[in-house]
Amino acid sequence: MIDTPSRLNISQRAAQLPASPIRKLVPFQEQAVARGIRVFHLNIGQPDIPTPPVFFEAIEKAQLKVLDYTHSAGTRSFREKLAAYYSRLAPGITADDVLTTTSGSEAIRFAMMTCLDPGDEVLVIEPTYANYKSFAIEAGATLKALTSRVEDDFALPPVADLAAAIGPRTRALLLCNPSNPTGKLYSPDELEAIRQLVLQHGLYLFSDEAYGEFVYDGLSYTSALALHGIEEQVLVIDTLSKRYSACGSRVGALITRNRTVWNAALKFAQARLSPPTLGQIGGEALLQLPESYYAEVRDEYARRRDFVLEALRCMPGVLVPQVSGAFYVMPRLPIDNSDRFCQWLLESFDHHGQTVMLAPATGFYITEGLGQQEVRLAYVLEIDDLARAMECLSSALEVYPGRMATA
Amino acid sequence: MIDTPSRLNISQRAAQLPASPIRKLVPFQEQAVARGIRVFHLNIGQPDIPTPPVFFEAIEKAQLKVLDYTHSAGTRSFREKLAAYYSRLAPGITADDVLTTTSGSEAIRFAMMTCLDPGDEVLVIEPTYANYKSFAIEAGATLKALTSRVEDDFALPPVADLAAAIGPRTRALLLCNPSNPTGKLYSPDELEAIRQLVLQHGLYLFSDEAYGEFVYDGLSYTSALALHGIEEQVLVIDTLSKRYSACGSRVGALITRNRTVWNAALKFAQARLSPPTLGQIGGEALLQLPESYYAEVRDEYARRRDFVLEALRCMPGVLVPQVSGAFYVMPRLPIDNSDRFCQWLLESFDHHGQTVMLAPATGFYITEGLGQQEVRLAYVLEIDDLARAMECLSSALEVYPGRMATA
Repeated sequence: MIDTPSRLNISQRAAQLPASPIRKLVPFQEQAVARGIRVFHLNIGQPDIPTPPVFFEAIEKAQLKVLDYTHSAGTRSFREKLAAYYSRLAPGITADDVLTTTSGSEAIRFAMMTCLDPGDEVLVIEPTYANYKSFAIEAGATLKALTSRVEDDFALPPVADLAAAIGPRTRALLLCNPSNPTGKLYSPDELEAIRQLVLQHGLYLFSDEAYGEFVYDGLSYTSALALHGIEEQVLVIDTLSKRYSACGSRVGALITRNRTVWNAALKFAQARLSPPTLGQIGGEALLQLPESYYAEVRDEYARRRDFVLEALRCMPGVLVPQVSGAFYVMPRLPIDNSDRFCQWLLESFDHHGQTVMLAPATGFYITEGLGQQEVRLAYVLEIDDLARAMECLSSALEVYPGRMATA
Repeated sequence: MIDTPSRLNISQRAAQLPASPIRKLVPFQEQAVARGIRVFHLNIGQPDIPTPPVFFEAIEKAQLKVLDYTHSAGTRSFREKLAAYYSRLAPGITADDVLTTTSGSEAIRFAMMTCLDPGDEVLVIEPTYANYKSFAIEAGATLKALTSRVEDDFALPPVADLAAAIGPRTRALLLCNPSNPTGKLYSPDELEAIRQLVLQHGLYLFSDEAYGEFVYDGLSYTSALALHGIEEQVLVIDTLSKRYSACGSRVGALITRNRTVWNAALKFAQARLSPPTLGQIGGEALLQLPESYYAEVRDEYARRRDFVLEALRCMPGVLVPQVSGAFYVMPRLPIDNSDRFCQWLLESFDHHGQTVMLAPATGFYITEGLGQQEVRLAYVLEIDDLARAMECLSSALEVYPGRMATA
């Protein structure tokens, strides 16, 4: 028998870490598939858009003999291409401001590890990207959530509320713009309010801009890199995953003009040696795609968004917020409990042998008990599949035993 | 002007994090190259052995349309190939015991984050892999070092000393076997002593086996996975980087039979979504290479080792330890200060327009002040280059102004 005294417990932080709210439904999905049911995946931000072939061509063309490490900050040429891309958002960004990371996840982690001490607080607008909580726990920091509401189209909470939430240990405001999970695009006025708050209170602004290319309705997107007067306080988180449908490349970046922060983040980067080499080689080709590429992908997502929003609006009792960015929407449904509903969709429901997998909104709120009537849909499938998925959802809402009045 | 109040300081942990002991010499290397000097890189474990072409062929053959995420634990087929590999070391390892990581670095981080709370201690044998310290700082843990000595061929310190170092907050022993940076291969007796210690005191054993294939002199290698009675306490750290000369693939694994630990580590893996997809596809092909591949690479490194050790032994005043594993050796040199010497080699020395870059041993010790007369050499170049590098070192030692008596 194995001796397992108490010092073989897992760490407190491991115990606190939430299981992925999306991935905990996977066993039910697997069982549905085993029963022969086709499952449409609107639960995860994995687009079906082809990765541009130049990615793979660049890797083949490189004819590598030895797949070696790169510089811990990424290859110079990759960082230069990234800097050229960011210069469109904020003039003057150079390769020296860019630290290549193992996708956006590592950029978030580096930002938190570099700027936060255990016990520090970070303001976030909930619902928010679920994994921020895990990274905060790793850093020993706490997320302090201000709630945005579906009935307000997830508008920025009043600035007075944000200011009132700032305590002596508050070090940063973490924004996802456009937002995963809500599709909210913050307006110039909202960004100006954030800029003033960050400036006045001397906070870091962690700006996750993974979905920056996906902005609709002719609206334009303002990067936090372009906000004046807080240049030294801004850390932008980026990834190639969504922009180029290259989620598996695991390449992204942390961008900051703050040299002290950049140099400190580099030490975390040195500890893990280097980001993936092939992702950088392929990514360099992606970053040289013509402007028309972004326009085409944006148009495709805009069509999908229009289709999904229209379909949702036709479903009785569904409250559909305005969505101008990213590829998510978080409607309020006439249901008792989104976790139960999403599981039921996989476990007990099908519509002509098909069903849909959604992400319960509960996992995107920090405040316990919120999100019970909301789900997140990722419109990452082509319209024919979205149509079938929406039919499934519509039929499901008619027969779901936990149906309730809303909206 | 920018408002920078004190809450815009970097974190204490970022301030504590050591700059890479290897990479801090890079500016001097760049200046040497700019002066037209050829620099032989024995300072970093980046082999010149070609990555087996099957790696790249597998990626081409996969003909991916969408480079998507994999499961957070890695693809099932990759984990099965890894499990088959580890089963040669310890029968019965299955894919369920394997968590795919973004190389060995992430496996170390997951092990520490999962098993250690802030304030906990980990025993290590110094000199040790420098980045362990960074990962410990990230986890808020402390490395407690027991010193091994070049004059003892870096043998395991007396078990009584190890036992005496265990305090109430000691949770784990971290071993690198075969050792980076010393090339030490722990003997069956030493491993048995470690097994008993870990069992008696209820510690985790973190075993970094990145260099497991590189064992010379007909000696055999025992994985910590094969140590009886501590199956639930062992976490093995692995990487494809060195074994297949695929450092840039950024794919490795954390292997443990402890379900609680595995499940907790998975939550950290879920937070960062997935390991690199291409590394897994190529890696699966690498894991199916015939046994002859390992033998060929081992023979090549054995030849290099023999060459380097012989060359070092011919240099007056150099103390050369026995080396039976990995591809490093850490001799004691007749020098005043290894940081100064390694910088001088790049800044002020050349031998017919050539010089050698080495890693000062100071960065591999936890105890301040140790390693001033030692350097780490990685014999990762072909013998012709090693010959030139050894000539450089030999000549350098003759003329180095800080030469001292030793050995």
